[in-house]
Amino acid sequence: MWKTTWCLMVLTTTCWHRGYTEEGGNVENPGHVSVVIVGATGDLARKYLWQGFFHFYATNVGKSYTFSFYGGGLASAEKGTPLLFGILKELTCPSELTAERCALVKDQFLRLSQYVQVKTSEDYENLNRQIQQQLEQEGLVEAGRLFYMSIPAFAYADVAEKINSSCRPSAGAWLKVVLEKPFGHDLGSAQLLTTQLGAFLQEQEMYRIDHYLGKQVVSQILPFRKKNNKFLEPIWNKHQIERIEIVLKETLDCKGRIQFYDQYGVIRDILQNHLTEIMTLTMMKVPANLSSSQEILQNKLKVLSGIQHIEKSSVVVGQYQGYTTEVQEELNKTKDDFSLTPTFAGMVIFSTNPQYEGIPIFMTSGKMLDERVGYVRILFKNNIFCIQNYNNVQCKPQQIIFYLGHGELQYPAILVSKNLFKPALVNSGWKEVTEHKDISILGLALSDYYIQTPVSPREPYYELISNVFHGRKDSFVSVENLMASWAFWTPLLDSLAHTYPRVYPGGVASGNLLNFQLHGRQVAFANEALVNVIQQGQEENFQVMQGKYRSAEMVSAWAKELVERLASDLQAVAEEAVQKSGRFHLALSGGSSPIALFLQLALHQYTFPWSSTHVWLADERCVPPNEVDSNFRSIHDQLLQIVRIPYFNIHPMPVQLNERLCVDEDGGALLYENEIKRHMNASSFHYVLLGVGQDGHTASLFQESKLDDHGERLVTLTESPVKPHQRMSLTFTAINKARRVGVLVMGKRKHELVTQLSRIKGESSKYPITRVQPTNGTLTWYIDYDALLG
Amino acid sequence: MWKTTWCLMVLTTTCWHRGYTEEGGNVENPGHVSVVIVGATGDLARKYLWQGFFHFYATNVGKSYTFSFYGGGLASAEKGTPLLFGILKELTCPSELTAERCALVKDQFLRLSQYVQVKTSEDYENLNRQIQQQLEQEGLVEAGRLFYMSIPAFAYADVAEKINSSCRPSAGAWLKVVLEKPFGHDLGSAQLLTTQLGAFLQEQEMYRIDHYLGKQVVSQILPFRKKNNKFLEPIWNKHQIERIEIVLKETLDCKGRIQFYDQYGVIRDILQNHLTEIMTLTMMKVPANLSSSQEILQNKLKVLSGIQHIEKSSVVVGQYQGYTTEVQEELNKTKDDFSLTPTFAGMVIFSTNPQYEGIPIFMTSGKMLDERVGYVRILFKNNIFCIQNYNNVQCKPQQIIFYLGHGELQYPAILVSKNLFKPALVNSGWKEVTEHKDISILGLALSDYYIQTPVSPREPYYELISNVFHGRKDSFVSVENLMASWAFWTPLLDSLAHTYPRVYPGGVASGNLLNFQLHGRQVAFANEALVNVIQQGQEENFQVMQGKYRSAEMVSAWAKELVERLASDLQAVAEEAVQKSGRFHLALSGGSSPIALFLQLALHQYTFPWSSTHVWLADERCVPPNEVDSNFRSIHDQLLQIVRIPYFNIHPMPVQLNERLCVDEDGGALLYENEIKRHMNASSFHYVLLGVGQDGHTASLFQESKLDDHGERLVTLTESPVKPHQRMSLTFTAINKARRVGVLVMGKRKHELVTQLSRIKGESSKYPITRVQPTNGTLTWYIDYDALLG
Repeated sequence: MWKTTWCLMVLTTTCWHRGYTEEGGNVENPGHVSVVIVGATGDLARKYLWQGFFHFYATNVGKSYTFSFYGGGLASAEKGTPLLFGILKELTCPSELTAERCALVKDQFLRLSQYVQVKTSEDYENLNRQIQQQLEQEGLVEAGRLFYMSIPAFAYADVAEKINSSCRPSAGAWLKVVLEKPFGHDLGSAQLLTTQLGAFLQEQEMYRIDHYLGKQVVSQILPFRKKNNKFLEPIWNKHQIERIEIVLKETLDCKGRIQFYDQYGVIRDILQNHLTEIMTLTMMKVPANLSSSQEILQNKLKVLSGIQHIEKSSVVVGQYQGYTTEVQEELNKTKDDFSLTPTFAGMVIFSTNPQYEGIPIFMTSGKMLDERVGYVRILFKNNIFCIQNYNNVQCKPQQIIFYLGHGELQYPAILVSKNLFKPALVNSGWKEVTEHKDISILGLALSDYYIQTPVSPREPYYELISNVFHGRKDSFVSVENLMASWAFWTPLLDSLAHTYPRVYPGGVASGNLLNFQLHGRQVAFANEALVNVIQQGQEENFQVMQGKYRSAEMVSAWAKELVERLASDLQAVAEEAVQKSGRFHLALSGGSSPIALFLQLALHQYTFPWSSTHVWLADERCVPPNEVDSNFRSIHDQLLQIVRIPYFNIHPMPVQLNERLCVDEDGGALLYENEIKRHMNASSFHYVLLGVGQDGHTASLFQESKLDDHGERLVTLTESPVKPHQRMSLTFTAINKARRVGVLVMGKRKHELVTQLSRIKGESSKYPITRVQPTNGTLTWYIDYDALLG
Repeated sequence: MWKTTWCLMVLTTTCWHRGYTEEGGNVENPGHVSVVIVGATGDLARKYLWQGFFHFYATNVGKSYTFSFYGGGLASAEKGTPLLFGILKELTCPSELTAERCALVKDQFLRLSQYVQVKTSEDYENLNRQIQQQLEQEGLVEAGRLFYMSIPAFAYADVAEKINSSCRPSAGAWLKVVLEKPFGHDLGSAQLLTTQLGAFLQEQEMYRIDHYLGKQVVSQILPFRKKNNKFLEPIWNKHQIERIEIVLKETLDCKGRIQFYDQYGVIRDILQNHLTEIMTLTMMKVPANLSSSQEILQNKLKVLSGIQHIEKSSVVVGQYQGYTTEVQEELNKTKDDFSLTPTFAGMVIFSTNPQYEGIPIFMTSGKMLDERVGYVRILFKNNIFCIQNYNNVQCKPQQIIFYLGHGELQYPAILVSKNLFKPALVNSGWKEVTEHKDISILGLALSDYYIQTPVSPREPYYELISNVFHGRKDSFVSVENLMASWAFWTPLLDSLAHTYPRVYPGGVASGNLLNFQLHGRQVAFANEALVNVIQQGQEENFQVMQGKYRSAEMVSAWAKELVERLASDLQAVAEEAVQKSGRFHLALSGGSSPIALFLQLALHQYTFPWSSTHVWLADERCVPPNEVDSNFRSIHDQLLQIVRIPYFNIHPMPVQLNERLCVDEDGGALLYENEIKRHMNASSFHYVLLGVGQDGHTASLFQESKLDDHGERLVTLTESPVKPHQRMSLTFTAINKARRVGVLVMGKRKHELVTQLSRIKGESSKYPITRVQPTNGTLTWYIDYDALLG
């Protein structure tokens, strides 16, 4: 090691100052830092890390810490030293330094750097000794040690263990360990890795890098939002935003990386980390204090917890044509081996946060696409009506784009369409672009944007290394955010495991093959979708069969069509009732089958007369009405929370009275009976929808119940053979007074029963359902093919 | 009269046939029809009516009725006859007739036509006698008489009276009277006109013409929707439609028509009738039976009843620059006279129908604009994500356009963008257009559309005259629809009566001056709006004053800012509560002031944690909870129906138990008290929002109540000095346990009280509000400037 350590100077910037006091350091004498890059001659270190540390050193030399740099590797010092100095010789200075100054600083940096072998525990003990000796010899106060793990993730735990046992800094000095993704492969492995590392390192000591957080535009999303809050606050919501697009397109293939890539695929490689981070920055609540890492990380976490669970049906995946061959070559597979790893994914995500509810968030990334570009686009709803002159800027799309770089624009920038507002510059290191190339970016000419861009380009690693020193934890991935992200992505990855990706030729030749389209809350490739629409259109009616079952009407179809048909029948009945009497009284049962119906009603029957519909319960379990077991709770969550029904029209069964459940003397059944009588003529529901159990029970009327005892009673307490035993139920008296009764039977598990029932004429004491015989009304069975045909 | 009547032939088309039987006519011998055009030499008759009748005659001659045509006018026969024959000589034949046949038919038509003076009752008696004589002389059976009133509306009643008393057809024959708009000037005058006409004519005898309903594209909107229902049904709703535009732009000014126009303006002239009719056709439920006039008219009526009341703030109006001069010249006004009549209007309309809820329906029309064009545009939400190649048709707007004619396209057509579906032709009289001019229509190249157009152009008046004969009532304006339309438009017209229109130069020079922009549910001229946004942005904070009032915190501002501030304070408290305890307990009072707050919360506080909020009542009137007087009802309608709060979190006061209101022994107050205790620690609300009455009462705690008697009771029944007297209310015990209490005081009427209260220290038995003194919580007064400063 060349002996030079730089003298201390008083700190100059407030930001620096804060970074410092967070560490509890001494401003007058910040002390000495030992930087250890583990994996110092690897790819990442060679390309970015040494340059980043050198840049940081060159910018901060004399202003704060003194430094030693150790490049650690598995090779012996003899082999490693020339390799390292081969890398260091190529380092370039930041552009603001003169050539003279550059030569000086670089010379200093080289003297401060050395190669060390870090393979065994003894190596780490030696390193520790070496650092201590230097500190003693030069009379330096140790400020901290920074380990940068530029090694495969599987080696993290081992190295962490060695650092912990042999190489921690002296008391009062800090330890910072920088880790690079991948942080696991799914939630389980990420948890395992976290547990392993947690045995040796504290969370505050770890800095998990997502280098996108160091990109100049990404790091300015929050400052931009805060600085322009007065313009953005009124429009940054579901009322104004039409869609959000988070896009990272690459032109490269995976050649040479297949060993890694084929284990991961595009979702783990790009979406789970980079695009998720960008999404959270775009959607999080702007923190009151931009310099509070804690507040930022907390707000980010809230975004993730507010993202709706994503189904397979909300994603499309693709794989470029050459990928299979690359896999076969690089992994020595046979010709028959076909990898399902996606190299392209497109999806739609929705937030449950009321601010963003319903805004489609398109997220997409892929290899071998037509251009290299990354951006977040916030497209606003077009709320202008242009009387003439369609080409005026006022009439054009309103959008904000965080443009990460490359693409047609070729430089990182924040673009705001001129029909929105003139934004403030994010900071003094940014400038407005006033000369515009004659190109269009996302549907708008460049001259129709206000554009700002960094004055000078900065490498992400410089930014991030600087943030490690400053303790800016918000530039890194906290363990909570990491777990939240994996918790979101893992179920999707699992469900996609056996999905065949659409094969695309790659480059411009892919044409429209990868375009995807929103259908409700799902997406499908657009070409396929067009075909589907046409097919659907050509079917003149549902594939529905009508017939007789137990002398009553029967409708049968596959589950989906059956539910659509029932929903549509129900709507016709509802409309007729509302037209005649101004209201529609509907009694619903619990159970799993009706849930598909509720969703159909809530999401597809746009014109259902909800505001005139009264919802009643056919039966209820004696549990508090907001517990998950409650029938009302499931109707509430699946239907009532989605459609708009007046509060007064909702009639849960009063199973809980006087703070107890279904006690006879509390008279809940009678209360409900009176409510029914008060609301409808002759206590006659317009529609009672029932299910049937495998044992033949319906509503909560079981074989063991004394079914004949009810007389004119409309509501009664009953006992179920299964838990929860206590129930409240409409009686057959009430059910058979209804104008229409529907019985919905779905699933193979019901086939046995459906067959049995078809053989029984009239009533059977064994099967309560046989007692459903509307006196003046009609009964219709809705039986899906699974239940009917087995 | 030239003596020829045409022999009868059997009907050929089914449509014709149906039209017939509706009239109860005899297919074998449909009989003779006398057509009387009253105002036969006026402008409308000269330009369109005679041509229309001749066209109808030429097409139907020999196929059905025999005819006589009477052109009636105020002038004597001597003067009138040459005028009429001057008009008739210019008639042109439909293009499908040969020149020879044309000459023959025209000659026949001339012989069947004659001028008659129709001024006095005697004239009508004479006409009646003349018709009867002809029928007798020629041995004809009378089928009916058709009177076409081509005269100013003020003369309708007079002529109707004369027709009724002197000129009705013989028994068994029909009477049809065709009327042209304007049908009144507002709801009142339309009702008056209806009553007047109703004294002489039956509704079924009247055919109110809106000639837009005869335009070829307009008349095919319903058939198109029905024929393509399988494609349209899934997308014709709020989930898929982004906006609807109904547009009629004219290039003409009002020169020569000012006498009429200045009384009416663009809304009465175009929007109340033509554009409203087009809107109903676009949005109505497609009838099951397209040939049922009754069903069509009923469905149309439902559209109108489902349109949201429109406020002045949803409309912008303009007037072209030259208009004032024209008014001064044509109405002999002085230079100082300035007419407020709008020649341009733009607006947004919303439907309450769940199918269309939230879709902005832009409606606009104006004189002196840049082009003559009319269309309905249904723009669908762009639900595709294009990975590459932005210019592919898939990535472009999806829209359907009913193009009435003129404009760039120059012919009437129905256009469907190719990325939607390939529509079926509406009928055999239409053809697909396959050669495309190189132009764009509403943002899409012509070649990106499927286009269909009528094979041959037809004048609206021909269509409508034909529909009169066929009794197709759905092509006319029913009295119910007329009244519904006026009922919708009249309040808006009244509210606009004193609004200054924006002056525009006219033609292309108007530039963007007339563009308007949606803000929530309102619109404003776009230029103005831009300025507003910037101004708003420049204000760093609300103009809010903070201080002390009665030793407590006080916030004061103008009403709007005050409510915004209260809503924002409330949200901060709610967020804090939810973070700490997972829920937020909020008690709300009734009264008018809180409604502004509810609306602010419902519509602007996007991020309010509703799903964790429990809503309680501070007090309630002893009326059923769904009656308008109920406090809960107003909270329900203004807040709960808009935001999404779980059913279990809503806590109305149980004022109605055992089918009676607020009876002590029913124990409603105790029930509510127990519910409070069950839900919150120490019965302590997070926030109680109160108002204060002019008499100093708060919640329902009045001066006369025995306020000290409540002890530890949290809820009590009280008596109000005003109706409804019985109340349920939180006690001061409950209120003073709250962590925060806000008192909202707004309006000049409260100024006296605010002044009084400021002078009283501590409690005063005269003013119950003075007893609000949270034990461990904080009290904040929100007082608007009106209440504070008077």
